[in-house]
Amino acid sequence: MTTTSTSDGYLYSETGLKAGLPSESVISPPQKIDRQVDIWDVAVIGAGYAGLVAARDLTLRGCRVLLVEARDRIGGRTWTSTIDGYQYEMGGTWIHWCQPHLFHELSRYGLTKEIMFSQQYSDNDVLTTMFSGTKKDIKYCELARRVIPLPHDPASRGEVAERWDAYSASDRLNQVRSQLSTEEIALLQAIIMRTGGSVDLEKIAFWDILRWWALCGYDGNGLAGSTALCRLKCGQTALAQSIFREALDTGYLSYMFQDPVVRVDQTDKSGTTVHCLSAEVFRAKRIVCTIPLNVLSDILFRPSLSASKIRALTSGSIALASKVNFEVTGSGLRQWSGIAHPACGGISYACADGTTPSGTTHIAANIFPICPEKDIETIKDALLRIKPLGIKKIVFHNWATDVYAKGAWTTFKPNMSRESLGPLQERHGWLFFANSDWADGWRGFIDGAIEQGMKVAKQVATELI
Amino acid sequence: MTTTSTSDGYLYSETGLKAGLPSESVISPPQKIDRQVDIWDVAVIGAGYAGLVAARDLTLRGCRVLLVEARDRIGGRTWTSTIDGYQYEMGGTWIHWCQPHLFHELSRYGLTKEIMFSQQYSDNDVLTTMFSGTKKDIKYCELARRVIPLPHDPASRGEVAERWDAYSASDRLNQVRSQLSTEEIALLQAIIMRTGGSVDLEKIAFWDILRWWALCGYDGNGLAGSTALCRLKCGQTALAQSIFREALDTGYLSYMFQDPVVRVDQTDKSGTTVHCLSAEVFRAKRIVCTIPLNVLSDILFRPSLSASKIRALTSGSIALASKVNFEVTGSGLRQWSGIAHPACGGISYACADGTTPSGTTHIAANIFPICPEKDIETIKDALLRIKPLGIKKIVFHNWATDVYAKGAWTTFKPNMSRESLGPLQERHGWLFFANSDWADGWRGFIDGAIEQGMKVAKQVATELI
Repeated sequence: MTTTSTSDGYLYSETGLKAGLPSESVISPPQKIDRQVDIWDVAVIGAGYAGLVAARDLTLRGCRVLLVEARDRIGGRTWTSTIDGYQYEMGGTWIHWCQPHLFHELSRYGLTKEIMFSQQYSDNDVLTTMFSGTKKDIKYCELARRVIPLPHDPASRGEVAERWDAYSASDRLNQVRSQLSTEEIALLQAIIMRTGGSVDLEKIAFWDILRWWALCGYDGNGLAGSTALCRLKCGQTALAQSIFREALDTGYLSYMFQDPVVRVDQTDKSGTTVHCLSAEVFRAKRIVCTIPLNVLSDILFRPSLSASKIRALTSGSIALASKVNFEVTGSGLRQWSGIAHPACGGISYACADGTTPSGTTHIAANIFPICPEKDIETIKDALLRIKPLGIKKIVFHNWATDVYAKGAWTTFKPNMSRESLGPLQERHGWLFFANSDWADGWRGFIDGAIEQGMKVAKQVATELI
Repeated sequence: MTTTSTSDGYLYSETGLKAGLPSESVISPPQKIDRQVDIWDVAVIGAGYAGLVAARDLTLRGCRVLLVEARDRIGGRTWTSTIDGYQYEMGGTWIHWCQPHLFHELSRYGLTKEIMFSQQYSDNDVLTTMFSGTKKDIKYCELARRVIPLPHDPASRGEVAERWDAYSASDRLNQVRSQLSTEEIALLQAIIMRTGGSVDLEKIAFWDILRWWALCGYDGNGLAGSTALCRLKCGQTALAQSIFREALDTGYLSYMFQDPVVRVDQTDKSGTTVHCLSAEVFRAKRIVCTIPLNVLSDILFRPSLSASKIRALTSGSIALASKVNFEVTGSGLRQWSGIAHPACGGISYACADGTTPSGTTHIAANIFPICPEKDIETIKDALLRIKPLGIKKIVFHNWATDVYAKGAWTTFKPNMSRESLGPLQERHGWLFFANSDWADGWRGFIDGAIEQGMKVAKQVATELI
């Protein structure tokens, strides 16, 4: 058992609030660099899933890769903290076999057997029941099959897509409002706000809600079933470790953690230079940059990024929710899940997610707009207001205040898919960009990160080999 | 444009019946062998998807691989014939993004943009409508979610699975018969027989039907939608070629087509020898054998395979349908699809699958129990009986009489999943077995072949590298 701790995340327990959490995602010692290499084939910036997959695919093809990461750990916005023998997912959590790139990776490492059902409902799935009861009446997403017939191909319905991408989630609600009951409207508002990362419906692109719907098989049953159904018993970090270890085993991977990249130059024709905060400078023929959408502007690129890419970065992803894990006494809430109306504030979504070895219940929740590390009492109250119970621990990562994330899962504003997806995916000289934030399919999910890492690695390999 | 022809398949046109079809799946010249290699790291037997993926993954990892194939082409039970500018799929045809291993490969080669909708229905999907109308009443598969909660993990519900695996498709029908209308029973019989490859319901394991249902998202809508919805504009052979080319580009792949393996020895500790019909003998440290279930007994293994594996081979896969492509005049049938009751004989399933460059309509069909190459008139009659129309061409591959396939997609008898899946997946000394016929998830589909090829390559690589 490792006792290594990351500086990420917070633990609140009876002894108070403490920054940093134990995690096997920490890479220690933080550096292993082959100093004989003068010019790297590829520098991969960021050790989230996109970066890990790109590094693995490129080292397997025999490229000399340097992986540079600001944090002390792998996994990016997906990582596991093991506390008292229980795996808490701090970011990306739920997985499904309809997420093809992710499932392929699980299959590759023999981890499909680790898939477990996260929630335990007596009547199979409460959330599903909520949807199913009114499914035929919910007009909101019924056009998804026509507008997004191929959910992994955002461009497949060019003009049709363009039209609907201009709608906000709220515009669409107003369009179908007269066909819905008051309860259906309230439920929809809650579901949309949760899907969109706890921001107002006016800000969320209707297209993004439609896209989730399409990816999940064009119904609410699928939406609940595919996005909050299963997770890995062993924790997501086991997958990240598997990818990282396979890359290491090739002998072609060097890495440097705890050193943020501050500048990327490609001022001469021979390649690029990557400048780190520590003043280390690396030369590389190609760069795979996996910095998230909301963080990319913090790096200085010379020459500067294209105007269209800069516009997309300025627009950014809007989801802000924090992931908060509660450990509560007893098993009384093991079958509980809840979704809150936007007017409620506090907890936007919560579900019992597991039973700890000591028999307490783990509840996973999304919180807004509270800053949990500054106001832990409000967080406690938010849960206690729903049900008075003993809170043993709160384990959380505030993705909104994390300087290397600046937000939760990707959510676009209206018109952004059409205007920004292309520019975000575009290369910039020797630089290639891979991140779940601009994935074609499961954007904002682990699957999207793997999709992007794989695609970009293939492109880079084609040029280098 | 290639004019290379494979000896596989048949073309019936106004000039009569002709064996062999043009296809870009043909590898010409058939051999490219690095004769300097004394012992190969891995000999891969069979160039279907399992073999291609294994060969690619292993060569990418730097293993010296010899690919040996009996046929003159790649792709195994999935290949495309291009005639008059139109792509006919001769075996595996339909694909979906819920097939994770396959979709990952399409994504890897930028082929997701080639996904097209196979059928064109005015009201979206006729077959779906058939299902949906009675969905709530069809009790047949309602237990799938409980019995197969993880469709890619056949062992996830041990004892429960065991119980239901003993049922035949017919046993289950008798169990729920009283709750169904006569029409529902007839429709179910037709759907089950089509799913099970045109054999009697008594022979088909109920488990196999449940498994399809589970893989497709636990409803009939998904069953139709995921297994006959989309295909590749460019033809499946483009994917097979992409995998083959990537393996070739490593410089580590040698190959020999048109030479069936007849014997595999591992009589001394130093490795194995592969004996071909041509009398060529190759030595290899490991073997990835991708020969299908119904063909494996035709090869002599020394020492012989385990008793449990031999039992599984004797049981075999029972699906027998041939894939027959009709080119018919006009576009009148472009929205047509049909499924036949077992009592009808002839065509068990047919659907309009595309429009050719000359404006005629392509209809894909499964035929039973007729042998199309021996009785083309009966095949013609079977279609004309349904609708009198001008048949311009019939393009087909009889998988039942093909000595390297001996059957259509995998269908198991009752109890076979439980008794045979483990033994079929088991290694035998230095031999590893990879074929869609014993895949964990999409057994009998392209996805299952890729799953198996990838998993076995990973195992082999772990031992060798």
